[in-house]
Amino acid sequence: HTDSFLEEHKKLLAADAVALSDTAWFAEGFPCIQTALRGLCYMEITVKGPDHDLHSGSFGGIVANPLNVLGHIIAGLQDEDGKILIPGFYDDVLKPTDEELEGFKKLPYNDAEMKRCAGVSSIWGESEFTPLERIWIRPTLDVNGLIGGYTGEGSKTVITTRGTAKISMRLVADQNPVKIAKQFEQYVKKMAPKGIELEAKKLTSAYPVHFPASSKFVQGASRAMEQAFGKKPTFIREAFSIPITYSFLKILNAPSVLIALGHPDDNLHGPNEKFSLEHFFGGIKMAAYFLNEF
Amino acid sequence: HTDSFLEEHKKLLAADAVALSDTAWFAEGFPCIQTALRGLCYMEITVKGPDHDLHSGSFGGIVANPLNVLGHIIAGLQDEDGKILIPGFYDDVLKPTDEELEGFKKLPYNDAEMKRCAGVSSIWGESEFTPLERIWIRPTLDVNGLIGGYTGEGSKTVITTRGTAKISMRLVADQNPVKIAKQFEQYVKKMAPKGIELEAKKLTSAYPVHFPASSKFVQGASRAMEQAFGKKPTFIREAFSIPITYSFLKILNAPSVLIALGHPDDNLHGPNEKFSLEHFFGGIKMAAYFLNEF
Repeated sequence: HTDSFLEEHKKLLAADAVALSDTAWFAEGFPCIQTALRGLCYMEITVKGPDHDLHSGSFGGIVANPLNVLGHIIAGLQDEDGKILIPGFYDDVLKPTDEELEGFKKLPYNDAEMKRCAGVSSIWGESEFTPLERIWIRPTLDVNGLIGGYTGEGSKTVITTRGTAKISMRLVADQNPVKIAKQFEQYVKKMAPKGIELEAKKLTSAYPVHFPASSKFVQGASRAMEQAFGKKPTFIREAFSIPITYSFLKILNAPSVLIALGHPDDNLHGPNEKFSLEHFFGGIKMAAYFLNEF
Repeated sequence: HTDSFLEEHKKLLAADAVALSDTAWFAEGFPCIQTALRGLCYMEITVKGPDHDLHSGSFGGIVANPLNVLGHIIAGLQDEDGKILIPGFYDDVLKPTDEELEGFKKLPYNDAEMKRCAGVSSIWGESEFTPLERIWIRPTLDVNGLIGGYTGEGSKTVITTRGTAKISMRLVADQNPVKIAKQFEQYVKKMAPKGIELEAKKLTSAYPVHFPASSKFVQGASRAMEQAFGKKPTFIREAFSIPITYSFLKILNAPSVLIALGHPDDNLHGPNEKFSLEHFFGGIKMAAYFLNEF
């Protein structure tokens, strides 16, 4: 109901900007302001083949198997390096400024720590971008769920009637999830061979947002952070989404200022969530300096 | 226990050939003898990525997603026309004789009837082969089951830890399922990117068999069929497998003669299974003529 509430109470809620502390510093000693959040376009595709289960011995080689087709469609969406192959997908991707990219490089990122967090033996992704660029300035595509055919123990030689994949794309400014959903649907439908019917539906979406570091609100917040914590914050981005920031922007015409006060190890939404006293009291000072800026 | 029983009782079971009626005529008025059965190599692959579920917002673009990888592997196994891309896969495929291919062409096959049986809107497969060639003389590959990640209603933005695919290949003479399983495993393992661990195991297999029309047993059966039913049988092949025929061949050195007596609409193993009286009495005559041949 947020959007309708905002629409109904535009006057009451009138604001130049929204100060929002729902993000974290990059690391101890690295205060940050986030200038962008990724958006989301979450699709579900269902690939339908024969109208009843078939014996793969009798029909293998003569009917298009919906699960084989599903594999081809997933592979066709993204190359092995991580680049997304949907025509027009990158058209609206905003280029980061040189200043932003320089700022990213000064952060104490290391692969070993990221591998430990993710529980993987190797970092992966588009080789022409650094890991931080890949999660902050690049849109991505992930298969979140797959199901079809016989999934129990052992074997069953079946060609099944349908397979389903849940596939979501993280978007970056200025991509539009409605446009992306259409491009996605057109592209996957083209990949379906004769004898296969393909359904694609959008399950959920969020617009990406971008609040440039050059704006007077972000610059004011930067000065307030520096005064409160004794160090100039770095302008970074955030990999996840905070959908309400798009509602504030669209309905109230109010950009958000994403003033980070958390620590990356605060265990957000988890057991033993914490918030450091140093950042609590520093945050109070920052808020006073920030108000003073206006 | 069939193989060990055959091994233990080789003397008791000594035979020149085995007469086996477990197949059907191609159509009413088209008596047949099958000269080959397809084999099977049924694999299960598990693609393992992160050691715990990850948020696709925070980690999308930086870790290899096992379900995206599974799609790439499935697509890498077979081109969109149906040709299998595993190196060496077709090396041992026996070429059919010109006589066989000519025989296939004389059969009353039609796409409309096949589409009706399979419940599909279009026939699919390797364009350089006819539909009957695709199910009889060509090996095929089908994904029989797929599972991974979030498969419930709605959306969950997860990068999951693993995905599993059951993939079976129908083999033709003289492919060897043990060799094919190795080729498959080596090939899929090569396709896994850094950060992904891939397990492949063989769940079940069956050797393809081939009993050439030129053998004296098949020729004798052909004459017996002609005498009993008044029409020379066509030498066709069978798309499915009868694994015991390989055991008879390997352990007893006895080829099988696949003397078809069923009708294609007998509804094998199904409700209201039937067997026509005409073929029942014709079969009795055929058996007498067949014995007489020897």
